[in-house]
Amino acid sequence: MSFDVHAVRADFPILSRKVNDRPLVYLDNGASAQKPRQVIEAVSQAYADEYANVHRGLHYLSNLATDKYEAVRGTIARFLNASDAEEVIFTSGSTEAINLVSYGWAAPRLTAGDEIVLSVLEHHANIVPWHFLRERQGVVLKWVEPEPDGSLPPEKMLAAVGPRTRLIAVTHMSNVTGTVVDVGAIARGTDVPVLVDGSQAAVHMPVDVPALGVDFYCITGHKLYGPSGSGAIWISRERQHEMRPFLGGGDMIRTVTRDGVDYAEPPLKFEAGTPGIVNQIGLGVALEYLMDLGMENIAAHERVLRDHARDRLRALNWLNIQGDAADKGAIFSLTMEGAHAHDISTILDKRGIAVRAGTHCAMPLMDFYGVSASARASFAMYNTVEEVDALIDGLQFCRELFA
Amino acid sequence: MSFDVHAVRADFPILSRKVNDRPLVYLDNGASAQKPRQVIEAVSQAYADEYANVHRGLHYLSNLATDKYEAVRGTIARFLNASDAEEVIFTSGSTEAINLVSYGWAAPRLTAGDEIVLSVLEHHANIVPWHFLRERQGVVLKWVEPEPDGSLPPEKMLAAVGPRTRLIAVTHMSNVTGTVVDVGAIARGTDVPVLVDGSQAAVHMPVDVPALGVDFYCITGHKLYGPSGSGAIWISRERQHEMRPFLGGGDMIRTVTRDGVDYAEPPLKFEAGTPGIVNQIGLGVALEYLMDLGMENIAAHERVLRDHARDRLRALNWLNIQGDAADKGAIFSLTMEGAHAHDISTILDKRGIAVRAGTHCAMPLMDFYGVSASARASFAMYNTVEEVDALIDGLQFCRELFA
Repeated sequence: MSFDVHAVRADFPILSRKVNDRPLVYLDNGASAQKPRQVIEAVSQAYADEYANVHRGLHYLSNLATDKYEAVRGTIARFLNASDAEEVIFTSGSTEAINLVSYGWAAPRLTAGDEIVLSVLEHHANIVPWHFLRERQGVVLKWVEPEPDGSLPPEKMLAAVGPRTRLIAVTHMSNVTGTVVDVGAIARGTDVPVLVDGSQAAVHMPVDVPALGVDFYCITGHKLYGPSGSGAIWISRERQHEMRPFLGGGDMIRTVTRDGVDYAEPPLKFEAGTPGIVNQIGLGVALEYLMDLGMENIAAHERVLRDHARDRLRALNWLNIQGDAADKGAIFSLTMEGAHAHDISTILDKRGIAVRAGTHCAMPLMDFYGVSASARASFAMYNTVEEVDALIDGLQFCRELFA
Repeated sequence: MSFDVHAVRADFPILSRKVNDRPLVYLDNGASAQKPRQVIEAVSQAYADEYANVHRGLHYLSNLATDKYEAVRGTIARFLNASDAEEVIFTSGSTEAINLVSYGWAAPRLTAGDEIVLSVLEHHANIVPWHFLRERQGVVLKWVEPEPDGSLPPEKMLAAVGPRTRLIAVTHMSNVTGTVVDVGAIARGTDVPVLVDGSQAAVHMPVDVPALGVDFYCITGHKLYGPSGSGAIWISRERQHEMRPFLGGGDMIRTVTRDGVDYAEPPLKFEAGTPGIVNQIGLGVALEYLMDLGMENIAAHERVLRDHARDRLRALNWLNIQGDAADKGAIFSLTMEGAHAHDISTILDKRGIAVRAGTHCAMPLMDFYGVSASARASFAMYNTVEEVDALIDGLQFCRELFA
C-alpha cells in the first residue's frame, strides 16, 4: 500500500486553516496531534445518536455504547499485537497509566533501598511517579545517561541493574531527541520487570508488545490522533495479578458492604467509575485509521521527513541539535546562539509554524544537554517535505533577526 | 425567565431518535446525561479548528486552546458561586476527584483508629476510596443510616462525629433515592472537614459552595450534560495547602531533577499531565448552557416532574419505592413483587423507555432497603410530564405481564 500524505492531510480539517494569515505548519505533534474527521465525526455521532453510560445498563443505548466502548479494548490489543484484550486497561492517558503502575504495583511492593532504574531521557510522566516513591518510602532512583548523541544502549541500562532493582522504567522514544530505545533488548537482558512509556513511539512506528517482552506498555490517545482523555496501558496477566487497585469507585468492584470490598477481576479492577466512554470510542477510530494506513507506511514516510530535516538542519552550522542518534523519530530539539527558544517559537508562529519552546517535560534531559530550554519541531504522518523546508526558512529568518 | 422544555429538548439531538421503533424516553440520567448540540458542536469545533496542547506552548493554537481551557475554571467557579477560580481543580470526574482527596489529603494525615463518617446513601465512588484507607492503614469507617424514607437528618451525621473523626464524606443528593442532604447544616455543626459528592445535586439544583461552608465539593461533567472525562473538584485554599500531590507527571511541577521535585502551586499541583482539554472545554459550554437556563428554573421544572411522578407512582400499590423523602430530586428506585429489576428494564426498553436496573453503585444502600436490585427512573431537565406518564404505562404493562 502506498502512503499518500495529501490524502491523509485532507482528512484533518485543522490542517487547511491559516495561522497569522499563513497556512498552518503544525510541528508540535510531540505535545499533541491533530485529529482526522473520522475521529471528530465518531465523537459527534456517539454523543448525538448513541450515548449512554456503559456497563450495568440493560437498555438499548447503554448496550450500544458498551459494545462500542468495549470493542476498543480489542482494537488497542490489535494495535499493540497483543493477543489478550483483557491485558488492556483503559486510562485517561500515559500519566494516569504510569501512576497506576506506581501506586498499584510498585508502592505496595517496594521498600526503602529498593531501586528503580530509569533513563535520563524520560518525560516527567515517567519520572515524578517514581520520585513519589523515593520521597514517601525511600526507594532509590538510579539514573542512566544517554550517549551524547541521545542514543541509549540497552547494555547501559542493564549495567545499572543490581540485586535491589525492582523495576526498569524507560521510554520507547524520547519526546525531545526522538531517540528510539531498544526496549526489547533491555527486557531480554534481565528478569526485572520493565515499564515502557510508549507515548511517542506508538505514534510513529509499529509496536509489537509480545515481541518486546516487556511488562507494562502505555499509550496516550491525544498523541495518537485520538481525543482528549483517552489512552491505555497493556499489563501482562502476571503483573496484573500482583497489583492492588489504584482508583476506587464504581465498576471496579464485585460487592461493596460497610465492612469491605470484594474487587472485580482485571481489567475492570483497575478501571474505576464512569470511564471516558466517547473519548475511548474516538481512540478506537483513530487506531483503526492508523492501522488502515499501516504503521510501517507511516514510519517510512516519517523517515523521509526525518532524513530531509536532519540533512537540512545539520547544514545550519549556527544551530545546535540536542541528540542526533541514528535510530530516531522525526523530532528535533534545537537551540540557537543568541536567540531564546521562546523567541524562536514566537517568530516561527508569525509564519504559521507551530513548534514548542521550553523544557518539554524533560528537565533532567535538558540538564544533561546543558540547555535551559529548546525549540522543538516534532513531525507527524501528515507533515510534508515542504513543511520541513518552511521550518528551515523560518529558522534562517530567526538567525538573521538575532545574528 | 420561563423554562421551555420543548425548546430545551430541541437542543438535544438524541432525544429525537427512536429506540425499538418508539420515541426515546431517556430516564437514565442518574447514570449519565445526554448532550446538547452546543456541547457537541463545541467539541467538534475545538478539534477541527482550535486544537493544540495547553500550557507551555507559545504558538497561536496552543495559546488559543489554553485560553479556552483555562476559562472553564472560571465558569466552574461561577457555577458553584465560588469567588476564587484557583480553588477549582480539573479532574476526569468525581471518581478521580474523591480519590484525589483520599490519596492527597486523607492518606498522609489519617492514622490507624482515625475515623471517617459517611452515610449509607453514598455511591461507591464515595465509599471505595475510604475502604482503601481502612484496608491499608486501619482507618475506621463510621456509617450513618438514613431514615426509612431515605432522608438523612444532619444531626444524625453530626451525632456520629467523635474525637477521632477526621473527615465527613457525604452526598448532596442520592443517586438512588434522590434524597437531598442538608450538607450546609452538617458543615455548620462541626469543625471536621466535609467532603461533598455533588455528582447528582449539581445537575438538578443551584449549588452555592461558600454558603454551604464545606471543604471539598466535586462535580462530574458527564452527568452535567458535558463530555466524557470532564469534571472538577472545588477545594478550599486551606485544604489545598494541606494536600500532597496525587498524580505525578508534567505540568504539576516547577522543576524536576534526578534528585527531587519542586512542585507547582495549586491548582496545577494537582493536575498532572496533558489534561482532558476538549472535554473540559465542552463542560464549560454545558455549564454556560445550564446557567443561561437558570438552575432555579431547571429545579422548578424538575420539581413538577418529581411531584407528578411521585403522585402517580404512589398510586401503584403493587410497586415499592426505595426512599421517598420530602426533599428529593426526581429520581425513583423501584421494585415490583414477582418481577426482577432487569426484566422491568428490558420490558420498558422495548417501549423505548431507558431506565437502569441493578445496584446503582450503591450496594450498602440496597442492603439497607433489603433489595438486591432495583429499576431506577432518573429524570433530567429535558424530560416531560408526558414521559412520566409513559413510564407509568410501561410499569403497568410490566405488572400485567408478571402478575
